[in-house]
Amino acid sequence: MKIKLGPSPIVFPMPAVLVGTYDGGGTPNAMTAAWAAACCHQPPCVGVAIRHNRLTFANIEVRKAFTICVPGTALAKQVDYLGIVSGKREPDKLAKLGLETSPCPTVEAPMIDACPVVTECRLHSQLEVGSHTWFVGEVVDVHVAEQLVGEDGQIDIDALDPLSYATSAGEYRALGGPLGAAYAIGKELKTD
Amino acid sequence: MKIKLGPSPIVFPMPAVLVGTYDGGGTPNAMTAAWAAACCHQPPCVGVAIRHNRLTFANIEVRKAFTICVPGTALAKQVDYLGIVSGKREPDKLAKLGLETSPCPTVEAPMIDACPVVTECRLHSQLEVGSHTWFVGEVVDVHVAEQLVGEDGQIDIDALDPLSYATSAGEYRALGGPLGAAYAIGKELKTD
Repeated sequence: MKIKLGPSPIVFPMPAVLVGTYDGGGTPNAMTAAWAAACCHQPPCVGVAIRHNRLTFANIEVRKAFTICVPGTALAKQVDYLGIVSGKREPDKLAKLGLETSPCPTVEAPMIDACPVVTECRLHSQLEVGSHTWFVGEVVDVHVAEQLVGEDGQIDIDALDPLSYATSAGEYRALGGPLGAAYAIGKELKTD
Repeated sequence: MKIKLGPSPIVFPMPAVLVGTYDGGGTPNAMTAAWAAACCHQPPCVGVAIRHNRLTFANIEVRKAFTICVPGTALAKQVDYLGIVSGKREPDKLAKLGLETSPCPTVEAPMIDACPVVTECRLHSQLEVGSHTWFVGEVVDVHVAEQLVGEDGQIDIDALDPLSYATSAGEYRALGGPLGAAYAIGKELKTD
């Protein structure tokens, strides 16, 4: 038996990532986002929902670019801080946290150096939904800390140790253990 | 030092959920999706990226509705199967897996009974991105297995035991242990 909890925008689990942008003057900013996902294969795109009053919203509109920076669990406190404190009130928030940035090679957005995976995005399109806009970025490159990349060219997900956000409980989570390979473990259920 | 892996649409971690739809004749379908996220607070909306040739794509266009059904890890094999086998080739794939469905109270989409959390969505808007369309659903209600709802009205994330998808490794993962409360653990980094 299911009970009705009323409307709320939930998906489990969510990622907890940082959205990197520059303002018009070149100051880097990062905000925490759990409302982000891959959203197209060709061209390769990721999307993120941003509230209209955010500094990140204004920065994306100006620079037409952003990064999705994937932190490891060691950055959980910094990630939480960057979700609490706005760059409008605290323009130096990255510096105060000791988080250094580097310019992306191609687009006008910063990479958070401490994040082992950075997706470099050029603004592709956007959809006004309501309180939030869904910004779609075309991925021009993915930058990964070299110690995370195996001989097969794949990202070692255990070495990355990404952060999750579990909404209803309002807490950060680590990723858990393996449950089987995709496009593989379901094959045994085929009946023909 | 970071190395360039080239463009690909990655975010870590991703959810692994089922998108429930009815076709024009009323046959329920479910496909696996990792490219899904919350995308608006007001109105409450979630989004999911669907490739144009999918049965789910056609079904959403006809019914203007879908569900996001969150499975527990016990359903990992079924979830994988539903990502491998199209409802176009196997219209009875849900029945073959023994997965029963119930109609949503408000919209024309099925709830997968075995999924402990079901988000009931009316199509709100859509964005053509390329190979995929980003479908935004306004959440009209969230249905949760009653044993998962605590006295505080919150969903017990450990009892839910949701599935993650870790792209680069191409495997399903469980959710791991708690790392601290959101809007809380970052406060100690405030300097004023």
